Amino acid sequence: MKHKGFVDLGFAKLDITREKRRGFPEIIYSPGKNPAHLKKIIKRFVTYTKLLFVSRVNSETRASLKEEFPAMRFYDSCGLAFLGTPRRGKKGNCLILTAGTSDINVAEEAAIFLELTGNRVERVYDVGVAGSHRIAPYKRKIQSARVIIVVAGMEAALMSLVTGLTSAAVIGVPTSVGYGASFKGMAALLAMLNCCSPGAVVVNIDNGLGAGYFAHIINK
Amino acid sequence: MKHKGFVDLGFAKLDITREKRRGFPEIIYSPGKNPAHLKKIIKRFVTYTKLLFVSRVNSETRASLKEEFPAMRFYDSCGLAFLGTPRRGKKGNCLILTAGTSDINVAEEAAIFLELTGNRVERVYDVGVAGSHRIAPYKRKIQSARVIIVVAGMEAALMSLVTGLTSAAVIGVPTSVGYGASFKGMAALLAMLNCCSPGAVVVNIDNGLGAGYFAHIINK
Amino acid sequence: MKHKGFVDLGFAKLDITREKRRGFPEIIYSPGKNPAHLKKIIKRFVTYTKLLFVSRVNSETRASLKEEFPAMRFYDSCGLAFLGTPRRGKKGNCLILTAGTSDINVAEEAAIFLELTGNRVERVYDVGVAGSHRIAPYKRKIQSARVIIVVAGMEAALMSLVTGLTSAAVIGVPTSVGYGASFKGMAALLAMLNCCSPGAVVVNIDNGLGAGYFAHIINK
Amino acid sequence: MKHKGFVDLGFAKLDITREKRRGFPEIIYSPGKNPAHLKKIIKRFVTYTKLLFVSRVNSETRASLKEEFPAMRFYDSCGLAFLGTPRRGKKGNCLILTAGTSDINVAEEAAIFLELTGNRVERVYDVGVAGSHRIAPYKRKIQSARVIIVVAGMEAALMSLVTGLTSAAVIGVPTSVGYGASFKGMAALLAMLNCCSPGAVVVNIDNGLGAGYFAHIINK
Amino acid sequence: MKHKGFVDLGFAKLDITREKRRGFPEIIYSPGKNPAHLKKIIKRFVTYTKLLFVSRVNSETRASLKEEFPAMRFYDSCGLAFLGTPRRGKKGNCLILTAGTSDINVAEEAAIFLELTGNRVERVYDVGVAGSHRIAPYKRKIQSARVIIVVAGMEAALMSLVTGLTSAAVIGVPTSVGYGASFKGMAALLAMLNCCSPGAVVVNIDNGLGAGYFAHIINK
Amino acid sequence: MKHKGFVDLGFAKLDITREKRRGFPEIIYSPGKNPAHLKKIIKRFVTYTKLLFVSRVNSETRASLKEEFPAMRFYDSCGLAFLGTPRRGKKGNCLILTAGTSDINVAEEAAIFLELTGNRVERVYDVGVAGSHRIAPYKRKIQSARVIIVVAGMEAALMSLVTGLTSAAVIGVPTSVGYGASFKGMAALLAMLNCCSPGAVVVNIDNGLGAGYFAHIINK
Amino acid sequence: MKHKGFVDLGFAKLDITREKRRGFPEIIYSPGKNPAHLKKIIKRFVTYTKLLFVSRVNSETRASLKEEFPAMRFYDSCGLAFLGTPRRGKKGNCLILTAGTSDINVAEEAAIFLELTGNRVERVYDVGVAGSHRIAPYKRKIQSARVIIVVAGMEAALMSLVTGLTSAAVIGVPTSVGYGASFKGMAALLAMLNCCSPGAVVVNIDNGLGAGYFAHIINK
Amino acid sequence: MKHKGFVDLGFAKLDITREKRRGFPEIIYSPGKNPAHLKKIIKRFVTYTKLLFVSRVNSETRASLKEEFPAMRFYDSCGLAFLGTPRRGKKGNCLILTAGTSDINVAEEAAIFLELTGNRVERVYDVGVAGSHRIAPYKRKIQSARVIIVVAGMEAALMSLVTGLTSAAVIGVPTSVGYGASFKGMAALLAMLNCCSPGAVVVNIDNGLGAGYFAHIINK
Repeated sequence: MKHKGFVDLGFAKLDITREKRRGFPEIIYSPGKNPAHLKKIIKRFVTYTKLLFVSRVNSETRASLKEEFPAMRFYDSCGLAFLGTPRRGKKGNCLILTAGTSDINVAEEAAIFLELTGNRVERVYDVGVAGSHRIAPYKRKIQSARVIIVVAGMEAALMSLVTGLTSAAVIGVPTSVGYGASFKGMAALLAMLNCCSPGAVVVNIDNGLGAGYFAHIINK
Repeated sequence: MKHKGFVDLGFAKLDITREKRRGFPEIIYSPGKNPAHLKKIIKRFVTYTKLLFVSRVNSETRASLKEEFPAMRFYDSCGLAFLGTPRRGKKGNCLILTAGTSDINVAEEAAIFLELTGNRVERVYDVGVAGSHRIAPYKRKIQSARVIIVVAGMEAALMSLVTGLTSAAVIGVPTSVGYGASFKGMAALLAMLNCCSPGAVVVNIDNGLGAGYFAHIINK
Repeated sequence: MKHKGFVDLGFAKLDITREKRRGFPEIIYSPGKNPAHLKKIIKRFVTYTKLLFVSRVNSETRASLKEEFPAMRFYDSCGLAFLGTPRRGKKGNCLILTAGTSDINVAEEAAIFLELTGNRVERVYDVGVAGSHRIAPYKRKIQSARVIIVVAGMEAALMSLVTGLTSAAVIGVPTSVGYGASFKGMAALLAMLNCCSPGAVVVNIDNGLGAGYFAHIINK
Repeated sequence: MKHKGFVDLGFAKLDITREKRRGFPEIIYSPGKNPAHLKKIIKRFVTYTKLLFVSRVNSETRASLKEEFPAMRFYDSCGLAFLGTPRRGKKGNCLILTAGTSDINVAEEAAIFLELTGNRVERVYDVGVAGSHRIAPYKRKIQSARVIIVVAGMEAALMSLVTGLTSAAVIGVPTSVGYGASFKGMAALLAMLNCCSPGAVVVNIDNGLGAGYFAHIINK
Repeated sequence: MKHKGFVDLGFAKLDITREKRRGFPEIIYSPGKNPAHLKKIIKRFVTYTKLLFVSRVNSETRASLKEEFPAMRFYDSCGLAFLGTPRRGKKGNCLILTAGTSDINVAEEAAIFLELTGNRVERVYDVGVAGSHRIAPYKRKIQSARVIIVVAGMEAALMSLVTGLTSAAVIGVPTSVGYGASFKGMAALLAMLNCCSPGAVVVNIDNGLGAGYFAHIINK
Repeated sequence: MKHKGFVDLGFAKLDITREKRRGFPEIIYSPGKNPAHLKKIIKRFVTYTKLLFVSRVNSETRASLKEEFPAMRFYDSCGLAFLGTPRRGKKGNCLILTAGTSDINVAEEAAIFLELTGNRVERVYDVGVAGSHRIAPYKRKIQSARVIIVVAGMEAALMSLVTGLTSAAVIGVPTSVGYGASFKGMAALLAMLNCCSPGAVVVNIDNGLGAGYFAHIINK
Repeated sequence: MKHKGFVDLGFAKLDITREKRRGFPEIIYSPGKNPAHLKKIIKRFVTYTKLLFVSRVNSETRASLKEEFPAMRFYDSCGLAFLGTPRRGKKGNCLILTAGTSDINVAEEAAIFLELTGNRVERVYDVGVAGSHRIAPYKRKIQSARVIIVVAGMEAALMSLVTGLTSAAVIGVPTSVGYGASFKGMAALLAMLNCCSPGAVVVNIDNGLGAGYFAHIINK
Repeated sequence: MKHKGFVDLGFAKLDITREKRRGFPEIIYSPGKNPAHLKKIIKRFVTYTKLLFVSRVNSETRASLKEEFPAMRFYDSCGLAFLGTPRRGKKGNCLILTAGTSDINVAEEAAIFLELTGNRVERVYDVGVAGSHRIAPYKRKIQSARVIIVVAGMEAALMSLVTGLTSAAVIGVPTSVGYGASFKGMAALLAMLNCCSPGAVVVNIDNGLGAGYFAHIINK
């Protein structure tokens, strides 16, 4: 059944006017959806958009989708899946930094999203403040970027350091990397929210996709 | 042994006067009960009521109960089990909304409970504020309902939006859907408790049954 | 004493190259600084910049500064003080929304900052979801803005609603407006971090200035 | 300026269609509003409704309003103010219980609201479980009520006890009465959310008005 | 190696004078100890005491201990193990109450400990406030007990109710029974700490043994 | 009006059978009660008991009560007030320890209560573990006491140390003494709840009266 | 009365052997002590030590002590008071850094303590990561110090940056500087505990004295 | 690719100047790194240092590394792995205490690190305050140590007791040993941060390596 502005599958109401309204179609969040529902949603949505993303796909769901949609691409590091035609071109100038190697999965969610949607992305990984000289060769990039995504767990000090060096917009993604009093990313989240430099904002813990999406908006 | 108003099984005291006192018999909460105890409770209770519900039945318990009570119905989406005779009729006017598809399991616990106890239920699923136009075709239903249950995780904004549109009683069920700083439903719970519109109340996280029960009381 | 890139007053090291490096001079945070220190910092800084902001000025500090710097402007609603020459022009397109009237002070911190730094600002106050039709006349503005700042306390549902309507970048400022389980803005903060729509980011509780600054960067 | 469905005062947008839409006009929350704004809001609103409530009025605001609106009634125990014509009649059957004497102020916010809006209210105060026999003479009232509001701080056990005795709808209002590990009402709030009996719901800490409003809806 | 007052095994220092000093030997906490260490500790300790308890024994550890110490008794409901000679006699008058059937495992830890150490124990299980009449037949027992242990999860209201009825010493054991905002027993813990009646104290969540031990001291 | 077992003042229901039922009359908690109510309660209660305690009396309430009840005794260190006839005799053997001098006020609430109710009390103040040799001269007292109250803030290590030395019942009172991460007594509370020695229980933060009352029960 | 190793004043037990045992006399914590007690403690202690510190002296206490002990020195920035003879010499090499000017008061508590106890102290204030070039001229000092104290609020990123540059022992003091989600220093505390570089430790929020004391031990 | 001061592997930037800069090479944190990445990092790093540590190696990673690096040593109790040449000599005087046997794994992480890096280490395990006489034979060691590491869970009282006995630097490691209200080590962490004796500092929960590293710095 098709209502004004959405397709009603009963268990789901596909927001088919989102792309027109917001410049980007709905992204399908997979956790908690049963596989049959998920497939029906995708089948229907694919007729409305060329940019269909499914997020947080686990290995079981992946297997099920792979069979049904052979053309779907899977990015295992971060659980993204994509069906459609990537936007061409490499617009703008997005820089993605991680504090450590363990933060890469979250960073890739942002990076892959940005690449498939036609943005220029540069990755600089593992430049946390434990060895802050590692950031020196990238200072120029940091200063000339339009938008920077900083992905960091533990105490997330990299975000504050980077924000102090640039006129770019800085988006912080706290990660759940750490143990003990990191409380699954809460320490990093609070640190980023209390960034002593203006010019930085924060998304939810491990929300690489949200950071990528926001960077895409700024980068336009 | 039968005391005044309850049956004493030693490990359990069946509250057999609850139906008379409260208009509804005891609902059996299954987690933490050992299977032998659970069966004995049900066997005894079934002689006192025609509305025997068991909640949060997992697959193991389900298998065990199925064998013992062939007439028992199981609702797998939400873990409810029912033994007895559903109340006839479709009284009143209950509307159940979910913000997303992932909230459906919790919503079904309320919906099935209400249907088996003789209430008219209408489901409108997946109308979260990310695409608030999806709610437009249901405005009349929202305005004419006697009681509305809003099931939502993450930031649970749907509850505040709906409460602002209706003179119905609104019951919010925060769900544990989300990740990171949703802290297993706490973000949704706090949001609902701080609803800027009067006319809304809240039950525990994922407590679809509690919302259904309360709606049943209002709906009488 | 003047080191490379900063002026050393002993108790403070003025970051006089920040304007060149970041496109904006240091903003002076007044809480916790003793009045004598604060005055010395301002006297020295004013020789380096035409955009000197002091934030969170209380009435006592205000009196002390007013005497010393007759040209300083004070914005009492939000505690901002400004010394210098406002940037001319009204660039870009920033929209500032509040959920309620009690959120205005925080919103003004963003608005005044943006105006003094040469941005076009539009204010739409008191459009919270308790009466969501109030937002209808502003839908076009919401859709055509480059960046939107949403200032909201309690459950902060306005941010999610607005994000779902626009392709603009949305910056959420949770406020400490509320009582009980709002826990001084924590409910609003968590709600905003869990926004179900991508396209939104968050700053610290009551941090209107941080939101204004970030909007200024995007708006450039 | 009058838009469709609201009056725009700039700093506030009066929701003048709320009474038609929701059956009840907007209630004005006074904290955080400056006195001049508050007066303007009231002056305008009073032309649209006969049921104008202002909540959480402190003594300073009270003095200011008293002068401006001589006809306004003030209920000092709970900070409510009322301007207009109380609804006549004593419909329905609302019972308000408090656990202790210190919870009365919050209870009165509910009681006065209900009385002014035409509901029958019965108060039974100071019947906490420390002396549970005090509740015995009221058992019949508890069983015959349509809706019960339980106001309790500390561990709020009264709510669970009462819910187990009645087929009425029970609304819990946790109060900030207590000290130490009551954490300003959080202990009572969590206790009420975890009520072992179905049939109970919860509003925000100290939110007597919210409970009264919801009871009014059920009671209709 | 034997030092003054303890036996040194290197990885453990057996407190062999505790029985003399405190009237009771050390109780061995099994979690986190490797099986070889645990066996060595038991072998050595058993030469010093006739009351050797091991707590929180899981099934794997149980199997390992069973083989090594055939005389050891295992109480599976609560994970206690005992080696030695139970104290004879049934001194005093301890009453153990649970709110629900799911709280029994924790209660049994207290009950079995008390029985093996020579105390008279009476169990009254499943008398939570959802059906408070179930407690009526036990009022005399509640009033004549020397010490009462109340084991309850969720909102733990039973403890406050019982404390208001008796001159006995009441020990509350919050359990992790519940879901959502019970936060693994924290709601019950806070409720018990805020008990409105004096005469009650609290132990750690699920700490049946600690309650049993303390009752044993009082009961002497 | 006098109901069965209580006197009904409307705003309060005096539990006049508590002394018979529980061995001790109601203790009046003063915070949040208005002065007129408080006086009426006391006037009426004093006709029923010779042991009338009012707790947490602040200086304003004290002045008001002093005038009305010249015979009332006030214990300023802890806010207790007493009207009646102290119980004679010094039964039993209660030992009260504090970790520091700043914990004395809370300890005195327990001590004075115990003395007025006919218990033998011994005070040993300022023996915290920062200088644990200070406890050595009191080891015999610690070992021979029937019940020990340990009052401590900060990390409250004294409780665990003392519990390890005695066969007495140990009651811990966490205090709000401390700063920063003591979080107003939460650190002390958690430490006491996690006491590694069995034989100890806990009351609410700063609840000296609750500890005294419980000691009185044990001491009987 | 003088026991073995301490002087007993009843309300306090002076630990007069602490200096011998620990190399440093007791430091007197003033909050919560009544003025008469405090004076008696100081009078007695001063006969045992030449290094008498009183911490967290507020202005009222200061006035009272000044009159009684004319020779006492007061350091108003941080609330320290000192009576005795400072240790001569400037041993070792302690560097104290603050992130901002608002952190100075806490830093001075450490600095003054270290100077009075004979340590060489160097202060470098206001070098937070918002302008990280300000730290460049001090890199040599950072690398050659024996121990570094980093005092920082908000997100406390300075500590991680500094730890990554040095082989010195780094002690972090989180401060309560900040607002909103800094939660009175908790954000800074968690950040410091999660420092990604080994070589750093943490003391309580605002505990400058504790950091100074520990530095003094290392510096010996 | 080799930049100034680090080797760039793309996914990781090896900080090869850390040993020179900080006196110790980078320690590789294994969680969250994929096995292929981990091996490449180790292969490259081993050409730069003789002290290569990998931390928190789980059994799966261990198997994979064992095959690739036959010379690597694995310390299973604590998850450390080491490749290179241990530093000779047994410098200084480090004492490691645990409160219980269950804390040993965390203690061993510190102990093994210190031994491999050339420090003298003494272990005294299981001397918690439940039997505080067990610490008596070690008082001399406690007084003569240069640095003491105290590893404790639950209420962690051992740290305060030990700090009060020594002039050594005391480093506390809270462990996640405990249950219920220990909240995975948070109770121990808060207790240690609120240590009533100066002279003690804290590292993250279960961070034995961090404590060992810091002790190594002091011990130099």
